[in-house]
Amino acid sequence: MKLRLGLPKGSLQEATFNLFKQAGFDFTIRSRSYFPAVNDPELEVVLMRAQEIPRYVNEGVLDAGISGLDWILENEADVVEVADLVYAKSTSNPIRLVIAVAKDSNIKEVSDLKGKRIATELVRVTQKYLKENGVEASVEFSYGATEVKVPDLVDAIADITETGSSIKANNLRIIATILESTTRFHANKDAWADPWKREKLQNMAVLLQGALRARSKVGLKMNVPGDNLDKILDVLPAMKQPTVSQLVHSDWVAVEVILDEKQVRDLIPALKKAGAQDIIEYPLKKVIP
Amino acid sequence: MKLRLGLPKGSLQEATFNLFKQAGFDFTIRSRSYFPAVNDPELEVVLMRAQEIPRYVNEGVLDAGISGLDWILENEADVVEVADLVYAKSTSNPIRLVIAVAKDSNIKEVSDLKGKRIATELVRVTQKYLKENGVEASVEFSYGATEVKVPDLVDAIADITETGSSIKANNLRIIATILESTTRFHANKDAWADPWKREKLQNMAVLLQGALRARSKVGLKMNVPGDNLDKILDVLPAMKQPTVSQLVHSDWVAVEVILDEKQVRDLIPALKKAGAQDIIEYPLKKVIP
Amino acid sequence: MKLRLGLPKGSLQEATFNLFKQAGFDFTIRSRSYFPAVNDPELEVVLMRAQEIPRYVNEGVLDAGISGLDWILENEADVVEVADLVYAKSTSNPIRLVIAVAKDSNIKEVSDLKGKRIATELVRVTQKYLKENGVEASVEFSYGATEVKVPDLVDAIADITETGSSIKANNLRIIATILESTTRFHANKDAWADPWKREKLQNMAVLLQGALRARSKVGLKMNVPGDNLDKILDVLPAMKQPTVSQLVHSDWVAVEVILDEKQVRDLIPALKKAGAQDIIEYPLKKVIP
Amino acid sequence: MKLRLGLPKGSLQEATFNLFKQAGFDFTIRSRSYFPAVNDPELEVVLMRAQEIPRYVNEGVLDAGISGLDWILENEADVVEVADLVYAKSTSNPIRLVIAVAKDSNIKEVSDLKGKRIATELVRVTQKYLKENGVEASVEFSYGATEVKVPDLVDAIADITETGSSIKANNLRIIATILESTTRFHANKDAWADPWKREKLQNMAVLLQGALRARSKVGLKMNVPGDNLDKILDVLPAMKQPTVSQLVHSDWVAVEVILDEKQVRDLIPALKKAGAQDIIEYPLKKVIP
Amino acid sequence: MKLRLGLPKGSLQEATFNLFKQAGFDFTIRSRSYFPAVNDPELEVVLMRAQEIPRYVNEGVLDAGISGLDWILENEADVVEVADLVYAKSTSNPIRLVIAVAKDSNIKEVSDLKGKRIATELVRVTQKYLKENGVEASVEFSYGATEVKVPDLVDAIADITETGSSIKANNLRIIATILESTTRFHANKDAWADPWKREKLQNMAVLLQGALRARSKVGLKMNVPGDNLDKILDVLPAMKQPTVSQLVHSDWVAVEVILDEKQVRDLIPALKKAGAQDIIEYPLKKVIP
Amino acid sequence: MKLRLGLPKGSLQEATFNLFKQAGFDFTIRSRSYFPAVNDPELEVVLMRAQEIPRYVNEGVLDAGISGLDWILENEADVVEVADLVYAKSTSNPIRLVIAVAKDSNIKEVSDLKGKRIATELVRVTQKYLKENGVEASVEFSYGATEVKVPDLVDAIADITETGSSIKANNLRIIATILESTTRFHANKDAWADPWKREKLQNMAVLLQGALRARSKVGLKMNVPGDNLDKILDVLPAMKQPTVSQLVHSDWVAVEVILDEKQVRDLIPALKKAGAQDIIEYPLKKVIP
Repeated sequence: MKLRLGLPKGSLQEATFNLFKQAGFDFTIRSRSYFPAVNDPELEVVLMRAQEIPRYVNEGVLDAGISGLDWILENEADVVEVADLVYAKSTSNPIRLVIAVAKDSNIKEVSDLKGKRIATELVRVTQKYLKENGVEASVEFSYGATEVKVPDLVDAIADITETGSSIKANNLRIIATILESTTRFHANKDAWADPWKREKLQNMAVLLQGALRARSKVGLKMNVPGDNLDKILDVLPAMKQPTVSQLVHSDWVAVEVILDEKQVRDLIPALKKAGAQDIIEYPLKKVIP
Repeated sequence: MKLRLGLPKGSLQEATFNLFKQAGFDFTIRSRSYFPAVNDPELEVVLMRAQEIPRYVNEGVLDAGISGLDWILENEADVVEVADLVYAKSTSNPIRLVIAVAKDSNIKEVSDLKGKRIATELVRVTQKYLKENGVEASVEFSYGATEVKVPDLVDAIADITETGSSIKANNLRIIATILESTTRFHANKDAWADPWKREKLQNMAVLLQGALRARSKVGLKMNVPGDNLDKILDVLPAMKQPTVSQLVHSDWVAVEVILDEKQVRDLIPALKKAGAQDIIEYPLKKVIP
Repeated sequence: MKLRLGLPKGSLQEATFNLFKQAGFDFTIRSRSYFPAVNDPELEVVLMRAQEIPRYVNEGVLDAGISGLDWILENEADVVEVADLVYAKSTSNPIRLVIAVAKDSNIKEVSDLKGKRIATELVRVTQKYLKENGVEASVEFSYGATEVKVPDLVDAIADITETGSSIKANNLRIIATILESTTRFHANKDAWADPWKREKLQNMAVLLQGALRARSKVGLKMNVPGDNLDKILDVLPAMKQPTVSQLVHSDWVAVEVILDEKQVRDLIPALKKAGAQDIIEYPLKKVIP
Repeated sequence: MKLRLGLPKGSLQEATFNLFKQAGFDFTIRSRSYFPAVNDPELEVVLMRAQEIPRYVNEGVLDAGISGLDWILENEADVVEVADLVYAKSTSNPIRLVIAVAKDSNIKEVSDLKGKRIATELVRVTQKYLKENGVEASVEFSYGATEVKVPDLVDAIADITETGSSIKANNLRIIATILESTTRFHANKDAWADPWKREKLQNMAVLLQGALRARSKVGLKMNVPGDNLDKILDVLPAMKQPTVSQLVHSDWVAVEVILDEKQVRDLIPALKKAGAQDIIEYPLKKVIP
Repeated sequence: MKLRLGLPKGSLQEATFNLFKQAGFDFTIRSRSYFPAVNDPELEVVLMRAQEIPRYVNEGVLDAGISGLDWILENEADVVEVADLVYAKSTSNPIRLVIAVAKDSNIKEVSDLKGKRIATELVRVTQKYLKENGVEASVEFSYGATEVKVPDLVDAIADITETGSSIKANNLRIIATILESTTRFHANKDAWADPWKREKLQNMAVLLQGALRARSKVGLKMNVPGDNLDKILDVLPAMKQPTVSQLVHSDWVAVEVILDEKQVRDLIPALKKAGAQDIIEYPLKKVIP
Repeated sequence: MKLRLGLPKGSLQEATFNLFKQAGFDFTIRSRSYFPAVNDPELEVVLMRAQEIPRYVNEGVLDAGISGLDWILENEADVVEVADLVYAKSTSNPIRLVIAVAKDSNIKEVSDLKGKRIATELVRVTQKYLKENGVEASVEFSYGATEVKVPDLVDAIADITETGSSIKANNLRIIATILESTTRFHANKDAWADPWKREKLQNMAVLLQGALRARSKVGLKMNVPGDNLDKILDVLPAMKQPTVSQLVHSDWVAVEVILDEKQVRDLIPALKKAGAQDIIEYPLKKVIP
């Protein structure tokens, strides 16, 4: 039995492959092929445009796929969300679908869009949003480079932005946010109803989320004189107990703890002051609470 | 007064810029800009996807543009064809929109597509063709990589092919040709009705076609003893008279002629036999008959 | 005293350098040099074509080298195999030397090659194989691009294949496998007889194999309530005992174990069910049993 | 409150970003920007040429920066050295500023430079050195490619060398070393006097040095029969006690130790002889003694 | 006897080599060498930074060189200008050295710079300009990326701009133009006094300018009925007589003329109306009036 | 009927394709294919390694091919030389096969090679040369990077050199030149005996040589007052008469001549002095005397 999985080709591909590799799934792509080999005989993988994956998952051509919430909505795909995976091309932040106009446009809010022309790659999502806001406007499909069309070709655009830098570079002004979107591991409803497939999907979700969690965490080990242990434990953040083990022929203990990498910046000086020695930090591949 | 012109960004861009440069229009693109500068103050140029140009020409946002016949039809754009320019990405041949299925599919002809699923970037053109052939089928928009979708995701595709090599490499079989398409210099109807714009468009067409014609032609010059001139003229292809001028203080004449480069392969040996000397071939930038 | 080592330049170079780096040997190549610096004063390294390394090891110009079994045999090099290192350009699989013909050729088995022409980069290995199979045929040296020579230039080829994709892409059919080949760390016989060199070679082999082994393994740590320890140990594969240590001021134990990364996919859900908490997975650089 | 930090753009940039990332500071550069985002709200970062950083630190435009000692001296910058960070473009060695002449020049020592012309990017440092050596010579600013100017354009150069290979490739001979230089984390005096900034700088220094130290070290773990522990401890280098913990239900102990990666080459065979089993080596991100 | 010539390495190199090639001087650069071979035994060429060439020409280390007027002035080089060659990196326009400030700065004119800090690569030229305008300000040497230093590091910059797009992209405002600069072929005074060198320099100037002139011109040939010649001559711009030759056995004449390529856009339609046939346009390598 | 032609893949490919294109034969290579399409239906082209082409021409698998004299000799191919085409990778000079040793080797002349080891890609040619010089030595096949093998791996090498720069960069000294080699258009003997094929080959040779000749030549045109014609003719090199034609309604003549581009450097100033005006130089595609 196999699970048929659609993964995004293009700008999200490398980030997706890296995450799956860290989770234990290693793909080999023969040049120009859309069907990568994978080191799990229970998987069958197809690369395709992120835009189309939810459609094929919805129709059951695929059992599951990775795509953004934005494209799930645009395809009006009635699918099961297996896991919300917060990663994107260049940062780990959600992306936003925003409506933008020229900086000096007199369109100030959504209601000003009445009767205007709006270009977007996400026509249905945009139309739905305008309808909900009671605005009638013409929404046209844009094949790309949407952000340069204002103001010469259209009055406004509805476009995806990750850091806002493209919006800024094109002298645009955001007037509304239609939605925030993250990457979703989603499944076909029939596949989810199948016990073998559901268990496989859930196991994959555990591994993918464990890998994602490990990215912002590190392991910290240190040796501590037994007497100082309480001081050290005070310094460590209020979290699950660290692992403490007695050293042989010695009254020192070894303390080991998993932390957010960001916390380490402030903790290490504090730990040293509290008497910790031989502090080492090591990288993690997965963290499962 | 300015003529507003849309040129294709992407795969056809370099070929288009080269042709315009040869025709005398030189573009300077600042990096990542969509509005190249041009050495003709009467032009204002926008780069955009070839797919969208006919739509904007039709609506009058642009006065004229360069795109393929396939996209003019897909946009159902009611535009004026100013010139048919036979050039493409890698060859000088027309491209074709074909319907293809897996090599071993039992779909043999168009009528077999009844009830099947067809992926294509040109949904309307494909739907129209099927309707004309009395076939009801589901045609869905493909964001790209259409040729790998058969047979796993869809039953057939309607895709553009220039040399047929992608069709072959994906083990597909062509069952029908929907249309042949070449690049078209096309104009908005109102722009065409404006005398200044129409003259500008016609002049540009003369230069672009003169440049295209020059690509397959060369100039040939040779010296010939006056007595041999008739023999030489016999060898030269049955075309417009060559230019013959008498040399000073000599009974030799200079003969100059414009030829298809392909003819030169066979002519040069024949010309030498007929007594021509000092044959030189030189390149051309434009040829206007 | 120094050990003189030949490493493959070209397609296997990056994979080889990565393996040595992981094993603790770090090379610095000055651009275009064939003599990289290395952080081990007991080594002297020469980069050369994998094809030639066994010849120079055999002759004693080098003490040891890294090359494929195929080239050791082609050079008829009488060398000592220090370690079999299963890694290659793009995968971790052995490569094969196969005889292939055009898909529609009427050559079906080795005996059909009688009197035919065969192109190969490994002339001697191929001749030996044919002789052992009682077939007389003409074997000629190919400088490369061997797989496109069938059927226009020769009747068959004997060529290396890693994934079979080039065989497939050129419409060839495999009729026989001459040998399977992996990368070998091999030494000159006199070098092997020298006690200092032999010990150095054996130590290097331990490190290289330890690095290779670590690639498919991970470390797993978890905390377990003392009562559940037996359940956890039941879940863990039948292997060497995991490392279990008592936590201080607590009746929990810490369990640590080294596993194949592939096993982790199925184990983690099982471990959680059996009561393990705070499971972390960490990467390894070497594993030495 | 923010600390304003200058980091080197160009050849040292990638190495610097990698080190900071390992230390826990992650930069995101928007293309062509000089103001990278960073995951620490207390930092504000500017990219600029290494040559200019000490000048702006000295003047207080920046609170602190990363640059070489050579450029701190050339700028005559009166700054506080927070940490000496031994890393460079391609190796981990200090770089040297040397005076070099053509191999066959009759300039043999510094005193022979009297009245000669010397090209250098570090005019002041070179002038100071010559003055201290009682030599009067003309020192001129070189915009780059300094090493090819001898002997055609100048008599000698004072140039930076990391591996000496450029000196060699240009047929030059070194006659003196003006200084050895390493990368310095340095601060403005007023910033250093501010308690918040000083603590931030000191904490960053601990993390950066911890990251640098971890690069040449690895963690080693092994299981040892209790009886053999002393033998194992004898084999381990004379350093801080390793961490030894008793295994549950067993008379084996687990030994864990942090070592220089170079030592591992010789230790692993010795540890195995002394009875260690299941030796694993794992990578480190930081080591703080 | 040889003429020693300095050519700019880096951003102007390719444009310079192309111009010299068109002028008949063909350089072969061995990789990473600064001494290209040239197909003229009377030349000896050195590549160096444009910034330094005028200094070495001034000192007589070079006989002549190619650099910008800006760098001739910055080096205070007392050299002979052999030819003004109007070409640059990406366009054929002069470049400008401008003073720019942040868009929203309250520095409005040069006098507002009093007491401010200005970064520039051309320190002396800038200081001289400020002095001439009676402004005292601090001018500091910038190693590059000058345009991003405003307003964080300095108050104003004096920077080179070719199209103004970098000024715009960095939100700067130009408050003054210090100078316009073009590329200059310049010579050392002693070299100019030497008759052989002066003649060589003058001949090279004729060829370089002939090549530059040819870039904006094309040759046009057409056949004209003898009766229409006057009409055709009326259409052709008021310039030197075109070349008219009588065709043999015919009352047609051939007309040949050299034109600015820009004129061709309008002339070709006019020529056709006036009865010209078989118009061809051909490229030129040099034009010498 | 078709002529089967082998063209060199790899380092000589681009230069060969450019020459054929100029001669009128335009190849289109589909990516990774070895069978380019060509705009001459009488040709069938195969790309292969230059080393192998003479072997396949000799055996009649190909009718003709392009390769170096060196490889024709190494293959002991008994073929017909159709044309000697002097072009190579980077220059237009012949290449040489030389024997080289380390600069400080005590091998001074060919006779010193007795009993030594020589690495080369051209084993047979080298062996033949040594035999003719009465020297017995061991010649071994080198797969590449031959020039770095001296002195560590072999005593001498026989290697191809185009500019000598690789010899120099590797500190080698040339002790003998085995042969000079240029590119040869060569044919199979049976193909040559076939009248249709022989004529095709000869016609191609005329076109290829015409294209090669045109590369170093230019066309020059000028207007001259009738009275000055003799002066002008005196200045022009002693060659075939230039083409002189009388201008209409004028006592000026037009003079046109084909010259070596190198001559133009000196001629243009002389022509101007002799009264020529409006001199233009134009490029040539073929010159056939």
